[in-house]
Amino acid sequence: METELEAALAGIITQGMEVVAKSEKLETKLIRAGAEKGEIVIMTRRGYGSLGIGKGLSTKINANIGTSPMAVNPMEEVEKAKVAETYGAHTISDLSTGGDIDAIRRSVFAATSLPITTVPIYQIVAKRHSFHKISHRDLISMIEKHVEEGVSSIVIHAGFTLKMLEKLKKKRRVMGMVSRGGSFTAAWMIEHQAENPFLERFDEILKILRKRDVVLSLGNSMRSGCIHDLRDEPQLFEIKMNFELAKKANAQGVQVIIEGMGGHVNAGEIWKYVKYHKKMIENRPLFVAGPLPIDVAVGYDHIAACVGASIAAGAGADYLCHITPSEHLSLPTLDDIKEGVIAFRIAAHIGDSMKYGLSNRDLELAKRRRKLDWEGQFRYALYPERAMALHPQKNGTCIMCGRYCAIKTMNKYFG
Amino acid sequence: METELEAALAGIITQGMEVVAKSEKLETKLIRAGAEKGEIVIMTRRGYGSLGIGKGLSTKINANIGTSPMAVNPMEEVEKAKVAETYGAHTISDLSTGGDIDAIRRSVFAATSLPITTVPIYQIVAKRHSFHKISHRDLISMIEKHVEEGVSSIVIHAGFTLKMLEKLKKKRRVMGMVSRGGSFTAAWMIEHQAENPFLERFDEILKILRKRDVVLSLGNSMRSGCIHDLRDEPQLFEIKMNFELAKKANAQGVQVIIEGMGGHVNAGEIWKYVKYHKKMIENRPLFVAGPLPIDVAVGYDHIAACVGASIAAGAGADYLCHITPSEHLSLPTLDDIKEGVIAFRIAAHIGDSMKYGLSNRDLELAKRRRKLDWEGQFRYALYPERAMALHPQKNGTCIMCGRYCAIKTMNKYFG
Repeated sequence: METELEAALAGIITQGMEVVAKSEKLETKLIRAGAEKGEIVIMTRRGYGSLGIGKGLSTKINANIGTSPMAVNPMEEVEKAKVAETYGAHTISDLSTGGDIDAIRRSVFAATSLPITTVPIYQIVAKRHSFHKISHRDLISMIEKHVEEGVSSIVIHAGFTLKMLEKLKKKRRVMGMVSRGGSFTAAWMIEHQAENPFLERFDEILKILRKRDVVLSLGNSMRSGCIHDLRDEPQLFEIKMNFELAKKANAQGVQVIIEGMGGHVNAGEIWKYVKYHKKMIENRPLFVAGPLPIDVAVGYDHIAACVGASIAAGAGADYLCHITPSEHLSLPTLDDIKEGVIAFRIAAHIGDSMKYGLSNRDLELAKRRRKLDWEGQFRYALYPERAMALHPQKNGTCIMCGRYCAIKTMNKYFG
Repeated sequence: METELEAALAGIITQGMEVVAKSEKLETKLIRAGAEKGEIVIMTRRGYGSLGIGKGLSTKINANIGTSPMAVNPMEEVEKAKVAETYGAHTISDLSTGGDIDAIRRSVFAATSLPITTVPIYQIVAKRHSFHKISHRDLISMIEKHVEEGVSSIVIHAGFTLKMLEKLKKKRRVMGMVSRGGSFTAAWMIEHQAENPFLERFDEILKILRKRDVVLSLGNSMRSGCIHDLRDEPQLFEIKMNFELAKKANAQGVQVIIEGMGGHVNAGEIWKYVKYHKKMIENRPLFVAGPLPIDVAVGYDHIAACVGASIAAGAGADYLCHITPSEHLSLPTLDDIKEGVIAFRIAAHIGDSMKYGLSNRDLELAKRRRKLDWEGQFRYALYPERAMALHPQKNGTCIMCGRYCAIKTMNKYFG
């Protein structure tokens, strides 16, 4: 089986490219050309469909779901997957670390048609409990298992070395390392006093991924955990290292997404840093979690992150990981997942307006608003049910201004 | 009685300047110097206190409340004023147009210690029903009445002429004119075929405001009602006209806020336009409603507007008018007011981080997050109760990651 990247390199238009072209309303040849350069990945959910992520395409949203050791409610995770899909997520990451993780993943697969991403190290850590008891073979086997089960993408944290960890330790960042997968990988390395296992076994991992054309997502272990942890040497090192790994993977036919610039980045720097990052990775697809532009919005982090994500998407981020109101506080509830996806769908639309210009959807809505055509407006709204629920009347002006509606007043004179 | 502006010009430090300096943690002489140049206004709620708005000061938030002809529930408006104050609004605008407007305003005054703004034309339109029946004298009397009752600021829409209305009519914007006060003023002008009454009686209005040092807010009638209504001649005309009026008012000792760049402005232009506007008005305090960077987030406009307002504040907007989830749909409920104020407090904090650099509050929170000190974190959160409600545990890690908490894992190695 050829991967989408290999097909693109051979000048072949795949079915996946056609699906992506159609949904993005772009020419198929542009999708192939983007895939060839590694600027676009075509993520496939086997048996369901294909999703394009990258330069020139609309901004995509990922929703994180999954159990934790302290909160295992498999049916709720299934519901979260459904809610995420309903409200507009394009992909789902199952980050379960508690309960029967295999069974939960199977249920999530059954509940949604969206591409699923996993972080295989989570499951092996949850299984073995001790980093000492985890071998290279265990890590590889878990990746193989997830790939064979049909995940569309896996995350590994390969962009740092033992030497870089020593430097990070000396840096005394306020928040240290806040990536869960990054911290597992780092803990494994420190406990074993061994080099990054994903780096050591990188070629073997590529072979596994290539076989099923599973997208490699290169994790962002070194992201800042607070806005005061400015971009530092470990962050820059990881960007460069992940780009080197991406090129290597691409050369082996494996499609790659690079995670970066996520976490906590102050608002004034997001635009510049995302531009820089996209340039450094030669326009490979950039996945950004958040970013949160401030730290004090605890409980409303989805709103603060919507601001960061809008700016990041506008500057070129291709793929956004949603942040929920529960971020930093608890495992998200069903409603938190919904609110997080909504905030990020808004961010993606704002980002796209900056990347690609204003959308016709906004114009069509405005035209109907001018006519006080409510049903018409709702047809173009991102969330028509919500708009309808807040607007009890079916016609005329709304109760905000009633007969003093500015539109109504001016329509009398301006027509 | 001298106004704050007149005192500043005479080199006098007023009690109001001292109050503002203390709350902004700035030197009193800087406040006086800003007031002298008209870059800072000191808004006074007689008997309560003073609020500074303008260059170099933290970004302020206004919450709009008030009845409409179709929704008159005076006690709910009182509750809205309280909720707005509780969640962090700095001023309240009572925009009532339904019921016993005098009585409602009195109740709002009694319910909050915040400065109150009104738009006097609203009440005279609600009283007379027909624009034909409203005279210059009626408009002036209503302004006098509000000033004598102790409002801290009034809004008039003086920045356009009959000739400009003719041009606007020909422009055929998608959304025409969407400012309620602007549309009332325009309707009055068209019905009477007379020039802008606030322009004609501007000197008289200044005398009334000067007497009680009430801040003059110059309304933004020409704002875009959708992102496709790009900045046009009427908008530019109003900016220039409002600045001319501001200089005239300042010369008469009257403090001025200029409204502008609000409404619907696409995300990619907000930064540039706000910078331009602040420059055009020589750093007079700029009040911005929203802006909304997209039109399709109906029902979640507070989140979309938080993005626009964050960028606007970062670029120099001094004072933000909140947008609630009910915007474009209905009169906001109590909960909508709360959600709107919260989203805008987040926007103000993000904007301040861009204007003035990162705040210590974010750093102090992050330090406690590193130690998994929950009570400590919540102390620095914008909304501690919300954070506590979402985090049921009192200590240890949160249930999101449980024992797999990245912070806990790395603290073991990094200390």
